[in-house]
Amino acid sequence: MENHEPFLREAIALSKSSMEGGDEPFGSVLVKEGEILLRAENSVFTGHDMTNHAEMNLVKLAAQHYDAAFLGDCTLYTSTEPCAMCSGAIYWSGIGRMVFACSETRLGEIAGIGLNVPSRAVLQTGARNVTVVGPTNLEDEAAKVHQEFWPKHLGKV
Amino acid sequence: MENHEPFLREAIALSKSSMEGGDEPFGSVLVKEGEILLRAENSVFTGHDMTNHAEMNLVKLAAQHYDAAFLGDCTLYTSTEPCAMCSGAIYWSGIGRMVFACSETRLGEIAGIGLNVPSRAVLQTGARNVTVVGPTNLEDEAAKVHQEFWPKHLGKV
Repeated sequence: MENHEPFLREAIALSKSSMEGGDEPFGSVLVKEGEILLRAENSVFTGHDMTNHAEMNLVKLAAQHYDAAFLGDCTLYTSTEPCAMCSGAIYWSGIGRMVFACSETRLGEIAGIGLNVPSRAVLQTGARNVTVVGPTNLEDEAAKVHQEFWPKHLGKV
Repeated sequence: MENHEPFLREAIALSKSSMEGGDEPFGSVLVKEGEILLRAENSVFTGHDMTNHAEMNLVKLAAQHYDAAFLGDCTLYTSTEPCAMCSGAIYWSGIGRMVFACSETRLGEIAGIGLNVPSRAVLQTGARNVTVVGPTNLEDEAAKVHQEFWPKHLGKV
């Protein structure tokens, strides 16, 4: 059976790195045939652009390196379910599959902010099929980084 | 009564310019207090990035120039209703209002492709309010550019 854990753990590690670097805790990796090709972190604060989500950054990086046909056989692994913007970006990029650890609902319970459109609700409307897997058994591990970040960031502790 | 027409006409002119430059026919402008601050065209082909929609390009350009507080008093005018990705980008950017001429439904009738999530369905889930206006009486004018582009682009004529 296919094992998503190493790639999701790498995405979660990137989410911690992003937080430690002064941004929001999200990370994503692009994988083809068991190999990590690209990595991206959230950079909304350090990049002065609130659309610099990890998945958006990864999709834009991927577009510089690969065409849509190549990306169709790639999987985007991400620490937390992509928002409507990032789900749309994944759709347009041609990436074939997306796997997330922590759900948007769980993130919302912790952070209490943001858009509330499940990634499947966006992706299922598309003219091409994007496989979606998640949340996974690593949800608690991915959520732990949010529990560390959001209460402080929102001034609630 | 507020007149959206000059700004929508400028966005439609940019959609034509975009098509003539080898990209998809979409254009957007950022307006504050009756003045056009920024313009953007679709650049998916010339920029080799399928996420380079006019609105996405405009939001990223705006983030380089202005902060979210400033953008809260701005309106993004766009030739055609933004997709889920671009609606999400508008949400995160802090832009206060979005006005479109041609609806996503009308675009779908002509182009028959893409995501099918109304911009309001994305924006109404957000924690902050973004005012949405459209489609407007310029829908036919905006749609004309799509009628010129998509049948040829999709190889149907």
